[in-house]
Amino acid sequence: MTRTLYDLLGADNRRYSPFCWRIKMALAHKGLDAEDEPCGFTEMEKVAFSGGRTVPVLVDGDSQVRDSWAIAEYLEETYPEAPSLFGGAKGQALARFVSHWCDTVLHPAIFRLIIGDLFQVVRPEDQGYFRETREKRLGMSLEDATAKRADWSRGYAPALAPLRAQLGAYEFVSGAAPAYADFIVFGAFQWARCSSPQPLLADEAAIAAWRERMLDLFDGLARKAPALEEAA
Amino acid sequence: MTRTLYDLLGADNRRYSPFCWRIKMALAHKGLDAEDEPCGFTEMEKVAFSGGRTVPVLVDGDSQVRDSWAIAEYLEETYPEAPSLFGGAKGQALARFVSHWCDTVLHPAIFRLIIGDLFQVVRPEDQGYFRETREKRLGMSLEDATAKRADWSRGYAPALAPLRAQLGAYEFVSGAAPAYADFIVFGAFQWARCSSPQPLLADEAAIAAWRERMLDLFDGLARKAPALEEAA
Repeated sequence: MTRTLYDLLGADNRRYSPFCWRIKMALAHKGLDAEDEPCGFTEMEKVAFSGGRTVPVLVDGDSQVRDSWAIAEYLEETYPEAPSLFGGAKGQALARFVSHWCDTVLHPAIFRLIIGDLFQVVRPEDQGYFRETREKRLGMSLEDATAKRADWSRGYAPALAPLRAQLGAYEFVSGAAPAYADFIVFGAFQWARCSSPQPLLADEAAIAAWRERMLDLFDGLARKAPALEEAA
Repeated sequence: MTRTLYDLLGADNRRYSPFCWRIKMALAHKGLDAEDEPCGFTEMEKVAFSGGRTVPVLVDGDSQVRDSWAIAEYLEETYPEAPSLFGGAKGQALARFVSHWCDTVLHPAIFRLIIGDLFQVVRPEDQGYFRETREKRLGMSLEDATAKRADWSRGYAPALAPLRAQLGAYEFVSGAAPAYADFIVFGAFQWARCSSPQPLLADEAAIAAWRERMLDLFDGLARKAPALEEAA
C-alpha cells in the first residue's frame, strides 16, 4: 500500500511547517513510513483533491485525510496496535486542549518573534503569497511587524508558563513518555528552529532539555532537519 | 472509616476556594462522601498536621493528603474501581497541563477582575490576612487593584481562547464526559460565581453552556452553593 505525506516546502528544501512536523513525528511514533511529497505555498493545487488547500495531507491507500488533528485521529483509529498517540478517550480530548493552547497562544507568540526570519526561508516564488496572507493576518506590513519584535517579545516568556510548569513536573508533556501532545508542542519549536537564528529557548532550561529529548526520538528524525538556530 | 475534607470558609458560610471545589467535585465523581471541616484563612493551624497551611486537605482513614493535585492522584490510586478522574497515565499528565494553564493563566485573569469582590466575602476576622497576602501578590493595594479592573479586563477574553476552542469541539474539557480536567477549570468559575456579582461568562456561550452542565452534575452539588453572580 502506498502512503504519502504532503509536506510544506520552503527555500533550499527546508521543511518548517509546525503542523507537518506534528504528523511526521506521529507517523514515526506509529512506526509508519510515508513517501515525501513537498508542496510550496503556491502549489496547493497538488492537494486540492483533499478538499482543502493546506498541508499536511495524508494519503494512505484509499484514504485521504487533511488537517493535522484529523490525521492524528485517523492514525490512532486505523493503527490501534501501534503505540498510542493519546492513551484513550480522555487523553485524546486533552491532547486537543494542548492543540488549542498551541494554536491560540504558543504559535502566535513565536510567530511574532520570527516573522522576519520566516520570510527569508519562503521560496522566492512563494514570497508574494506569504507576504499578502501574513500581512493580512498581522494587520501590518512584514517590515512593521519585524520592527515590533522587541515590543512583542515581552509577551513570549509569560506565554510559556503552563509548558514550563509541565516540563518541571514531567519528562514529557504527555508524562513519562512522549505522545501526540508532545508532537503538537514540538512542532512549534521545530518551526522556529528550522527558520530562525534566534535561540528562543536560551532562558528556558526545562523546555530546552525536553526539546533535546524530542530531537533524539526516532533516530534523531527531527535533528536531521537543517537548523538555522544559533547557539545561545 | 472516617473521611474529612478541610474546606476554605468565607463570610456567611460561603465556600469559594477553587482548589477545594476541584476536590469536592472529584469526591462526588468517585462516589465518596466526606465530612465537612470548614477552615478560615486564619485558622490554618487546624491543618498543620498535614505539613502545610493551605486547604484542601483530605483525611481518609489513616491517610492525610494536602494539595489538590496530590489529593486527586491519591483518589485515583486509592479508588481505582470508581469512575476514573484521568483515564490513564497520558490523560493524567495532560490533566496536569490543564492545571498548570489554570494556575498560571485562568486564575490570574479571573483574580484581577474579582479581587474587590473577593475581599467582601472574606470573614471579617480574616480580612487583615487576606489584604496583606493579596497586596503582596499584587504589588499594590486592593483598592488600587480594583481600580485597575477595566484595564485588566482587556486580557480576560484572550486568556479564555484555548478553553473556548475546546468547548466548541467537545461537550466537556475531558471530551464526551466530565473528568478531573473539568473540575480544575470549573473550580475557577465557581470561585467567581460564589464571590462576585459579575457575570463573567455573559459573552462566552460555549463556556457558559458547559458550566451549566457542570452545575447540574451530582444532583446539582455545585449549583446548591449560594451564588452572588447576577444574571447577564
